[in-house]
Amino acid sequence: MNKKKVVIIGGGFGGLTAARELNNADFEITLIDKTNHHLFQPLLYQVATAALSPGDIAAPIRGILNKQKNLSVIMGEVIKIDREKRFVELHDSEIAFDYLIIAAGASHSYFGNDQWEKFAPGLKTISDALKIRERILLSFEKAERFIGKADVDPYLTFVIVGGGPTGVELAGAIAEISKKTMLQDFRKINTSKTKVILVEAIDRILAAYDPSLSENAKESLEELGVEVRLDTMVSEVNERGVKVGDDFIETPNVIWAAGNTASDLLKSLKTKLDKSGRAIVNSDCSINEDENIFVIGDAANFRGEDGNPLPGVAPVAMQQGKHVAGILSNESNDKREPFEYFDKGNMATIGRARAVMQSGKIKLTGFIAWLAWGFVHILFLIGFRNRYKVMAEWIWYYISYRHGIRLITHKTDL
Amino acid sequence: MNKKKVVIIGGGFGGLTAARELNNADFEITLIDKTNHHLFQPLLYQVATAALSPGDIAAPIRGILNKQKNLSVIMGEVIKIDREKRFVELHDSEIAFDYLIIAAGASHSYFGNDQWEKFAPGLKTISDALKIRERILLSFEKAERFIGKADVDPYLTFVIVGGGPTGVELAGAIAEISKKTMLQDFRKINTSKTKVILVEAIDRILAAYDPSLSENAKESLEELGVEVRLDTMVSEVNERGVKVGDDFIETPNVIWAAGNTASDLLKSLKTKLDKSGRAIVNSDCSINEDENIFVIGDAANFRGEDGNPLPGVAPVAMQQGKHVAGILSNESNDKREPFEYFDKGNMATIGRARAVMQSGKIKLTGFIAWLAWGFVHILFLIGFRNRYKVMAEWIWYYISYRHGIRLITHKTDL
Repeated sequence: MNKKKVVIIGGGFGGLTAARELNNADFEITLIDKTNHHLFQPLLYQVATAALSPGDIAAPIRGILNKQKNLSVIMGEVIKIDREKRFVELHDSEIAFDYLIIAAGASHSYFGNDQWEKFAPGLKTISDALKIRERILLSFEKAERFIGKADVDPYLTFVIVGGGPTGVELAGAIAEISKKTMLQDFRKINTSKTKVILVEAIDRILAAYDPSLSENAKESLEELGVEVRLDTMVSEVNERGVKVGDDFIETPNVIWAAGNTASDLLKSLKTKLDKSGRAIVNSDCSINEDENIFVIGDAANFRGEDGNPLPGVAPVAMQQGKHVAGILSNESNDKREPFEYFDKGNMATIGRARAVMQSGKIKLTGFIAWLAWGFVHILFLIGFRNRYKVMAEWIWYYISYRHGIRLITHKTDL
Repeated sequence: MNKKKVVIIGGGFGGLTAARELNNADFEITLIDKTNHHLFQPLLYQVATAALSPGDIAAPIRGILNKQKNLSVIMGEVIKIDREKRFVELHDSEIAFDYLIIAAGASHSYFGNDQWEKFAPGLKTISDALKIRERILLSFEKAERFIGKADVDPYLTFVIVGGGPTGVELAGAIAEISKKTMLQDFRKINTSKTKVILVEAIDRILAAYDPSLSENAKESLEELGVEVRLDTMVSEVNERGVKVGDDFIETPNVIWAAGNTASDLLKSLKTKLDKSGRAIVNSDCSINEDENIFVIGDAANFRGEDGNPLPGVAPVAMQQGKHVAGILSNESNDKREPFEYFDKGNMATIGRARAVMQSGKIKLTGFIAWLAWGFVHILFLIGFRNRYKVMAEWIWYYISYRHGIRLITHKTDL
């Protein structure tokens, strides 16, 4: 008898967890991803701000899953899902499924102004992070070259749009590298004069947190020299700069950290999507039209206890991945358990040695919160890729034949 | 009194050594480089074959030199040297000099067939290495996807043109990752069936070494499964593959490791160049027309004791950089010492735990040579960037405010 086919779209936190949880299941599993690597996205802003190398926070999916004999990995882009005929379509082939797990994630939303993307890149992939890193570094280089010959203020101005965790972390990190790391590297410009502006449309940053933490994060950013503009909309981004409220700020350095839209692929699913393009799912993460098609993570709108969709964070995706794998492993079981999110809390760093965190009723700020942040992230990274081994990687390569850095970071035409 | 101006073009081994040796000299020094980083080129093939990250073998020039108060760094491309008016021209500015040290290196030569470059990239920069890395990795991915649907042999075929150290090291490393590292990552293709072909125009590889070592290296490569074709010319490279002798080999994976040409910039110097475009220099490394303009490293043709130009290797460039710095530091001294190259020897690795090396009359092969290679390169890397600190970098960053990975790797329009 042929084994049933499970197709997983996406090798992020959700897809990878589902795949691993099905380790001993009697299926023929195919995991498809557009890139060849799993990415530890919570630290992506550190690549964008030149604190970490891509290889530190990404690992080849094949390498992670190469011991799992019931699974094969395909690098490719799924362009269409055919629910009736039960296959997914790649550019040059089709892959049939009995069960489908869609963990395709989200990308930036420019709220109908896609022409802004060219001038204000977002931060979702290694390639995005490298693009932003180069833009930041080149801007300082240009300021150093052009000072005395032209107005260099625009090169020393950075505008981050969106006061969620990514925006806050980027703003803090850029302020810090300008005022600390870069300071002694340049002779002519004074990098401590760098202006970093964080723009948020509503009345506080980190809206998912308790208001007291939002306030604390704002103060911490301001201590680092970041200008936080609340209740302020961006109405234009072009090659000269960005219109923030009533001001036009001249700068080539605009970074987009506002708004997500789920993968376009979901449209071919012909199920109900919310206004962010996420599939609205049932309590078992399946879609209404088909109990064997599941959507998890950032691609899903799963209504939490408070009636709002669960946030687009790694723990949600991982717990949903595990939940769906559990359903498939007990496929003969008629009654499916509903998914319940166990919220361990949220945390965001603000530069060096400062953070805010919230877990249930516990709220922490400052150095203690930062220590907690570091602890949790190092713990996560150990599961994901052994930090101790990273340290001895160069020697290790010769002993073990393993290559740690097999990343394909540029966009390819697959 | 105004200080005399020294301009150094190039932040490679030669330029960087010259800059450092002038640490205490009473000059106003400007070092100009097209990129923002110094590159440890001898290990570049390891980035191309996914053993090392760019950050492991490159470091920002500003970071290396930021304590040197008599020096400023400019990231930019020198497009012309005006010997009479004594300035170098960048795209948007000019920089005057009293002394000029040209350490602009070399790039690939396709012997008049520049149209081949698109299909057969060479290996000189981080960007080149990443391009080659992605090409290699994508080729395996495509083979895995297309097997059963198309002929995948071309994807599993690699042709390296040129049997010098770079070609030998690339061929060995690619054979090894295919047959070892990649083997358990793929389900459908058998990566150990990968064909690696090394093509050399003359009758032996590693022509700069003793013939017995050339033979040893060839045997070592063959043991790794590399096919070495001697006395064989490449007459065509296109999107379908490469013509090697009388055979046309279908493959998207052709890597160019044959032939160098010195920087085009030297043409504007209006001095005598050899057929590789290198400036022919005097015994003190200056050019015939101007005793205060020096050319060193891969950009120079310096006739060695045997009447042949010195090889394009790091020790030559570094020793010349030091020599020229010595001349400038004693500028009042009328009599200049001639440069003498102290040849410590040559070494090339062939895969894991094998190498050939030659130092004076000493010739070593196999594991002993590989140990010596490892020892010398780790020693070098320590001088260049502290390997022990790399290990603790993530923690270190928070303690010290240093960012280790500030690389601009993509081509930019500076």
